[in-house]
Amino acid sequence: MSSNRFGNIFAITTFGESHGAGIGVVIDGCPSNIEISKEEIQAELDRRKPGLSKLTSPRKESDAVEILSGIFEGKTTGAPIALFIRNHDVDSSKYEAIKDVIRPGHANGTYLEKYGVFDYRGGGRSSGRETAARVAAGAIAKKVIYPMMVRAQVENLLDIETALEEIIRMGDSVGGIIRCEVINVTPGLGDPVYEKLEARLGFAMLSIPSVRGFEYGAGFSAANMRGSEHNRKYGREGILGGISSGKEIIFRVAFKPTSSIKLPQKTLDLNGNETVFVLPEGSRHDPCIALRCPVIVESMAAIVIADALLMNRCSKIDY
Amino acid sequence: MSSNRFGNIFAITTFGESHGAGIGVVIDGCPSNIEISKEEIQAELDRRKPGLSKLTSPRKESDAVEILSGIFEGKTTGAPIALFIRNHDVDSSKYEAIKDVIRPGHANGTYLEKYGVFDYRGGGRSSGRETAARVAAGAIAKKVIYPMMVRAQVENLLDIETALEEIIRMGDSVGGIIRCEVINVTPGLGDPVYEKLEARLGFAMLSIPSVRGFEYGAGFSAANMRGSEHNRKYGREGILGGISSGKEIIFRVAFKPTSSIKLPQKTLDLNGNETVFVLPEGSRHDPCIALRCPVIVESMAAIVIADALLMNRCSKIDY
Amino acid sequence: MSSNRFGNIFAITTFGESHGAGIGVVIDGCPSNIEISKEEIQAELDRRKPGLSKLTSPRKESDAVEILSGIFEGKTTGAPIALFIRNHDVDSSKYEAIKDVIRPGHANGTYLEKYGVFDYRGGGRSSGRETAARVAAGAIAKKVIYPMMVRAQVENLLDIETALEEIIRMGDSVGGIIRCEVINVTPGLGDPVYEKLEARLGFAMLSIPSVRGFEYGAGFSAANMRGSEHNRKYGREGILGGISSGKEIIFRVAFKPTSSIKLPQKTLDLNGNETVFVLPEGSRHDPCIALRCPVIVESMAAIVIADALLMNRCSKIDY
Amino acid sequence: MSSNRFGNIFAITTFGESHGAGIGVVIDGCPSNIEISKEEIQAELDRRKPGLSKLTSPRKESDAVEILSGIFEGKTTGAPIALFIRNHDVDSSKYEAIKDVIRPGHANGTYLEKYGVFDYRGGGRSSGRETAARVAAGAIAKKVIYPMMVRAQVENLLDIETALEEIIRMGDSVGGIIRCEVINVTPGLGDPVYEKLEARLGFAMLSIPSVRGFEYGAGFSAANMRGSEHNRKYGREGILGGISSGKEIIFRVAFKPTSSIKLPQKTLDLNGNETVFVLPEGSRHDPCIALRCPVIVESMAAIVIADALLMNRCSKIDY
Repeated sequence: MSSNRFGNIFAITTFGESHGAGIGVVIDGCPSNIEISKEEIQAELDRRKPGLSKLTSPRKESDAVEILSGIFEGKTTGAPIALFIRNHDVDSSKYEAIKDVIRPGHANGTYLEKYGVFDYRGGGRSSGRETAARVAAGAIAKKVIYPMMVRAQVENLLDIETALEEIIRMGDSVGGIIRCEVINVTPGLGDPVYEKLEARLGFAMLSIPSVRGFEYGAGFSAANMRGSEHNRKYGREGILGGISSGKEIIFRVAFKPTSSIKLPQKTLDLNGNETVFVLPEGSRHDPCIALRCPVIVESMAAIVIADALLMNRCSKIDY
Repeated sequence: MSSNRFGNIFAITTFGESHGAGIGVVIDGCPSNIEISKEEIQAELDRRKPGLSKLTSPRKESDAVEILSGIFEGKTTGAPIALFIRNHDVDSSKYEAIKDVIRPGHANGTYLEKYGVFDYRGGGRSSGRETAARVAAGAIAKKVIYPMMVRAQVENLLDIETALEEIIRMGDSVGGIIRCEVINVTPGLGDPVYEKLEARLGFAMLSIPSVRGFEYGAGFSAANMRGSEHNRKYGREGILGGISSGKEIIFRVAFKPTSSIKLPQKTLDLNGNETVFVLPEGSRHDPCIALRCPVIVESMAAIVIADALLMNRCSKIDY
Repeated sequence: MSSNRFGNIFAITTFGESHGAGIGVVIDGCPSNIEISKEEIQAELDRRKPGLSKLTSPRKESDAVEILSGIFEGKTTGAPIALFIRNHDVDSSKYEAIKDVIRPGHANGTYLEKYGVFDYRGGGRSSGRETAARVAAGAIAKKVIYPMMVRAQVENLLDIETALEEIIRMGDSVGGIIRCEVINVTPGLGDPVYEKLEARLGFAMLSIPSVRGFEYGAGFSAANMRGSEHNRKYGREGILGGISSGKEIIFRVAFKPTSSIKLPQKTLDLNGNETVFVLPEGSRHDPCIALRCPVIVESMAAIVIADALLMNRCSKIDY
Repeated sequence: MSSNRFGNIFAITTFGESHGAGIGVVIDGCPSNIEISKEEIQAELDRRKPGLSKLTSPRKESDAVEILSGIFEGKTTGAPIALFIRNHDVDSSKYEAIKDVIRPGHANGTYLEKYGVFDYRGGGRSSGRETAARVAAGAIAKKVIYPMMVRAQVENLLDIETALEEIIRMGDSVGGIIRCEVINVTPGLGDPVYEKLEARLGFAMLSIPSVRGFEYGAGFSAANMRGSEHNRKYGREGILGGISSGKEIIFRVAFKPTSSIKLPQKTLDLNGNETVFVLPEGSRHDPCIALRCPVIVESMAAIVIADALLMNRCSKIDY
């Protein structure tokens, strides 16, 4: 069994594999009468599309979204919204050669343990391609939360771009940090105990492939602060006791470097013997996965906030 | 509305306020035939009990747990387990004086916005006292996951203890980091997409009051690593693709310094006017909240793992 | 594992056994600012109390409710509401004699299969006593849904009362039907597909012990009607396409006769051998369980409707 | 908001409208290694297909299923399974004429109230066409529960067929009852309190369009029985205390007559004025909807049982 659903009221369920028919999402719980066009969804998808420049994976996908249900005459109807992105560039033959090898940093081994199935074609469900479905859903979530807005960007972008040519030449990769800001925040979002807004955001971010850390407010630096200093600097921050205060919310997400690199690496085969893993010729490979992820971070943040916004409608009865 | 439930199959629902009748938890979904005694639960609760030394809050609570249901003749029965810890030391009169003030770093203001209710007695549901219920539930989760074990401790404990006398003298507080290790891990726990094991752990940790960051594996340091280095050092780490590999799992949690300090602080009253907040004489106050939290971190980790363990039983059908 | 939770947003979790410390409920998701007194909850509990007359089980319980959390100064606060009813009359010694026998119509055998535990004291979680927790929660749900109101009563009450003296004398029992009406219904409650209002009501009713059937609108009689007749009589009924229309909602619930009767009955012991079961002297026994159940039917209906009312707030966005 | 999900562990989410791109379902939580072919799914779909004879609606649909994800080389992989059935025969122009009329027994009016949207094309989400998605999911559920089997059939089928020619000639419709049997039942399925197996079955059945009643065991006839008689006849029935005993389970479902009939009917327009509704020429119309529903009843029962089967794996820990 595996759970492919995220959210309580505004809930998404994604499906599809990197080398199957395509990737899709069903959004259940979207309110009716939200205006949204196919072009708006497509514009968000284009932001994460690989192959845009030498800096990102050369997979060529049109990533054209099809609206299967839930939108009629440009508006949501209250019915579930299904979006589908068909795969085209899915020649999986090159994966045949490495089908008996546990790829370093990859999930193949743990999948085999859990499901008794070893899908040697690409990354299956754990592929970064699944995130296309999140972005499509995020495009709608952004409309739901308006006038709240989320904006994410890679920190030290210029430094990374400067270093990237050398990294690509070496066949290596590098990590990165994405900083996200939510503005015009409605006060009262989030819950005081388990569904704290920061806990939901952290949950969402840590579900993005390659993420290794999440912090908000003063984050890890708070560990070395005095209370007097922290209260002065962060005492009226964006989330207090799990609930939004109305001030902007800022959080940071750490991405590890891409596992798939061109350098040869030691690993194990399925029998547990040491071997050397070499990425097949022509394999896609992102030298810095973080560069493609701001739109994914924004999408998941928008989904969390849309969910909290709808949940918040139930906290008071107004007679 | 607020959600006070955590977990999918092994699910806890906590209730109670810091200044009401007591704090409790209902554990729904615990398998039958798990041996557990009241003394084992009490021993865990005693680990987080305040007032043990000059270093922690002087509130004197016996924190005696009562088993209300679900355990018969020393074993779980499959019925919901209800545990209750009655409050005794709950003189809330000293909070009267500050009932019109928004306490710096506290949730009073956001609560008022969300619920239209301003409970001036202690911290209500956002009080650290709610975590007693998590620890009681964690005692049972630890039995469920055995022989897996979780161990958490404060990093740089000696340094903090050395500094603490000075901090207390100044009426200030300090943050800290807790490092947690899970050993003897069953492979196959966690899900590949949204319910990744690290995402569930992060969600759980970020729901603990005062937590500002979570990282696992290489964490934030991964952002500055090359892929070749990361794969070499962390390529076979404890969680791959959201699923446990069988190796130990290590994560770190950042705690901010306690908000309630004895130093006077600027804040706003409920009318939005600037005022100075002074903690009432005799108020409880933890100079370093992180010192009491290893057992809370362990409890939440055990609850996440118990839940993942039960969920994992459904991933394969064995005929 | 067993699930002891009911509801999506207005969600109850019950706990406790008929022969343990007591019976309780945690209501999670109740909006703040609902006025409710302990006396109002108690009044509902008194309606289902056994021992009121010769017609119902002679167990003598004060069934006094204690509010453990979530209500402050006579109002809900948005925090989880925990209610507890301590058991007093719990001498389980008389059950010792029959502890190796599978009681006809009772759940002992299926419990043993499922949990590997055979609790010979009373009915454990499947006891009718668990319904006290539902009624306590229902008292609050009734306040949430106001001015909607639910009213249930036993059909043909006079006939049953006339026959009951004879049934008691014979040591037998009898079934019954409860008819329930919801008035002043808010239009738009319920969902069009799985969470149809009638499906939620049926689910709730069929979770009440001893219930064997549920019907609404024309019910089973619809099976023999022509469409022209049905449309004329029921075409504008209270629920259409799963959603309330605003008209009153009427449904009926069938209760089987109480399984515990004084007449000797054939059954099996735990080794599968035929034996004769005789209810121990002094055992409690309701000749017509349906007589005590209108308040339970009302409570569960109110919980379903409170849940649907809160869910419905999320169906449209009003800018 | 509306919920389009059913199930806890083996959970389906359906999407699509009768007059949109198509109807689909995502099955989340299906175990890996279940053998299933497209042909097996198609065979089940063909059982509910309209237009097979003069007795059912003349809509001509190929209802060809496409597997979008989750099945690889003839087996489930543990990933979510998405199935899609594209609509072809969707000329909605004939609905234009009646777009301002509330159709008798139809959900248009309640939809308008709930979503602020009035979709005049067919029945939208409340259309019987949504049930195709349930049947596709049911085909997989049947494989999961094997060797348990579900068999449903219309009661008094010959009588209905005899009467049907006359009913069609009159432009009227008729209701019916479907009886369903589950055999080879694994003992221990279901939960003792809210998730009773009969409550889940009732919930599932009452979510099928046109259903007005559900009963199991002695059903409504139990209301008039004595306990001695009921215990003798039903004392070892298939579900006891909410949990399967291992004996076969029998339940009955009442269907109302189809609302769409050819006879003219009185109704209201959207302004609340009385008017006469006449079904547009060439509209589809099932004289007895129950005739097409045995496969739907079976599918929903199989989904409930698959869910309970997976849940039951968590009730005991075997060391």
